[in-house]
Amino acid sequence: MRKNRTIIFENKPYIEGFASVVGTKEGEGPLAQYFDIITEDSMLGEESFEKAETKLQQMAVKEVLKKSNLKNQDIDALFAGDLLNQCIGSSFAARGTDIPYLGVYGACSTMALSLGLASIFVSSGAANKVIAVTSSHFCSAERQYRFPLEYGTQRTPTSQWTVTGSGAIMLSSSKRNMCINSITFGHVVDLGVKDANNMGAAMAPAAADTIKRFLTDTGTKPQDYDGIFTGDLGKVGTALLYELLEKENIDIKKVHNDCGLMIFDIDEQDVHSGASGAGCSASVLTGYILKNLENGTLNNVLFCATGALLSPTSTQQGESIPGIAHLINIKNDKKQ
Amino acid sequence: MRKNRTIIFENKPYIEGFASVVGTKEGEGPLAQYFDIITEDSMLGEESFEKAETKLQQMAVKEVLKKSNLKNQDIDALFAGDLLNQCIGSSFAARGTDIPYLGVYGACSTMALSLGLASIFVSSGAANKVIAVTSSHFCSAERQYRFPLEYGTQRTPTSQWTVTGSGAIMLSSSKRNMCINSITFGHVVDLGVKDANNMGAAMAPAAADTIKRFLTDTGTKPQDYDGIFTGDLGKVGTALLYELLEKENIDIKKVHNDCGLMIFDIDEQDVHSGASGAGCSASVLTGYILKNLENGTLNNVLFCATGALLSPTSTQQGESIPGIAHLINIKNDKKQ
Repeated sequence: MRKNRTIIFENKPYIEGFASVVGTKEGEGPLAQYFDIITEDSMLGEESFEKAETKLQQMAVKEVLKKSNLKNQDIDALFAGDLLNQCIGSSFAARGTDIPYLGVYGACSTMALSLGLASIFVSSGAANKVIAVTSSHFCSAERQYRFPLEYGTQRTPTSQWTVTGSGAIMLSSSKRNMCINSITFGHVVDLGVKDANNMGAAMAPAAADTIKRFLTDTGTKPQDYDGIFTGDLGKVGTALLYELLEKENIDIKKVHNDCGLMIFDIDEQDVHSGASGAGCSASVLTGYILKNLENGTLNNVLFCATGALLSPTSTQQGESIPGIAHLINIKNDKKQ
Repeated sequence: MRKNRTIIFENKPYIEGFASVVGTKEGEGPLAQYFDIITEDSMLGEESFEKAETKLQQMAVKEVLKKSNLKNQDIDALFAGDLLNQCIGSSFAARGTDIPYLGVYGACSTMALSLGLASIFVSSGAANKVIAVTSSHFCSAERQYRFPLEYGTQRTPTSQWTVTGSGAIMLSSSKRNMCINSITFGHVVDLGVKDANNMGAAMAPAAADTIKRFLTDTGTKPQDYDGIFTGDLGKVGTALLYELLEKENIDIKKVHNDCGLMIFDIDEQDVHSGASGAGCSASVLTGYILKNLENGTLNNVLFCATGALLSPTSTQQGESIPGIAHLINIKNDKKQ
């Protein structure tokens, strides 16, 4: 069923399994206990950061299959994406799996995009079991978007730290406790922010727009949810999100948290404005959020991952930063 | 309905409109008469090749809306992708449209990927009207994947010429003559080809795999279709495709053509092994193929776009080239 922008499922896609893999720094942060695998170093035994990122995705997919005692051939489709040029983290991870591969790109919003598309696949009957996976890697992202680590550049106060991590979710048409209840896909919002070191500010307007549309479409209020988690707005972006929503008389503060503020101890771990990356919201979702939904600490949450759709080329050409946010409403049906 | 890998629609998504925009060189080729818009130069009045590519997509979307007398707000979702780093051709084109934006990446197979996902959206009832669009631009692709044009590098005999062009298709749940009948999404196939100047060879195994699976799943034969169009295998890749399919006792030669061999006069226009790019199969589909389906010259075709999922980084790191191919069966229902 469709209400304006929001798709509300009659045939609900269920969450059959999920897994998270993160790097060492993430494993030293406040969410450490929630992650399935914490790697020992940044290279994961590979020759390059890019190959290490590929391995993160492979590990996440393997872990989700292992938990469910399933094999590659049981999966009908793999929705995957990452931040690397031509999404090589994902395509190389999918190589050798024999699972139909559907590449997606939504920058740091990719987990919500892939999970949303996967949900529609399962709900429509086009697939019985699908996996949605995304990743990012601090070192490959720094090299590609900013400077090689060897330069030792100074980070600006508004900059965010790209998470080394991956999260994978398996959806199924078979009844389980947790389900995807509804989705709002966002449009590209650009209020003219040009500072590529302040992506939180560029993404906040998109998050505000998508959250407002979802609440309007469903006739619900922030307090109807026991958690509203934005993707990775960080400190700067979160403050802006509150400001933008206040103008619409929407106050989410009591139930809101931002994946970019949760995964690290911002001050102790020296990550400036917080965390970011397609692996940030993915690992927080498949770590903290889904584990708390599974055990009943949370029941009904909104996961709104945000993306900054820039490239180094667009920034060099003087373009502003288009933002996007997709929202997924996830419930634990057993508790209702 | 699902038969192994192939999704056969009960609620069929219909093609409500389509449009093609190509560059000057494409407009001098054998398919010139089929394109809606042929641009006067490569820059389209923009300051950079990347912005020109963005404009190609914007023009294609505007044209498809204009033909159907619709506006942005009538469209529920926009599936878009291109070859540029972080898919900026698509995200910047979507900026300002207010249409929910779903970014996809499948290299040169992106038109089939976006059209396939769009079909599932419409068939499932998640959307009433959606647009699938992709693009590529010779100059932005050369600069990004190979060398800046100013270098004047020599092209290898196996290299393909990236098409400057874009194609957009609007799908609708309302009955029309042309429909998407079925889809087979492919998996990543990599037989170890490492030559980034021979992408046809890297993609041919994926095309062979997807075509074989589709024919097996549907119990049909090549001669049941009046056209099997691969994405952009070029001369080298097409020869390999025939060879691989012959081993499986499948002969498609009589009904096959390759978009990469159709859009240019290969010898006269000096494009070596043929054409390529996400805009190649997109513009041939929305130019030649759909116009011939619309007028009844064709009735039942297979569109199998192929992609080489490499990046300059993966090539520099010594990786081989993963290929992928997605297949869409398009019919003119009126004629059956």
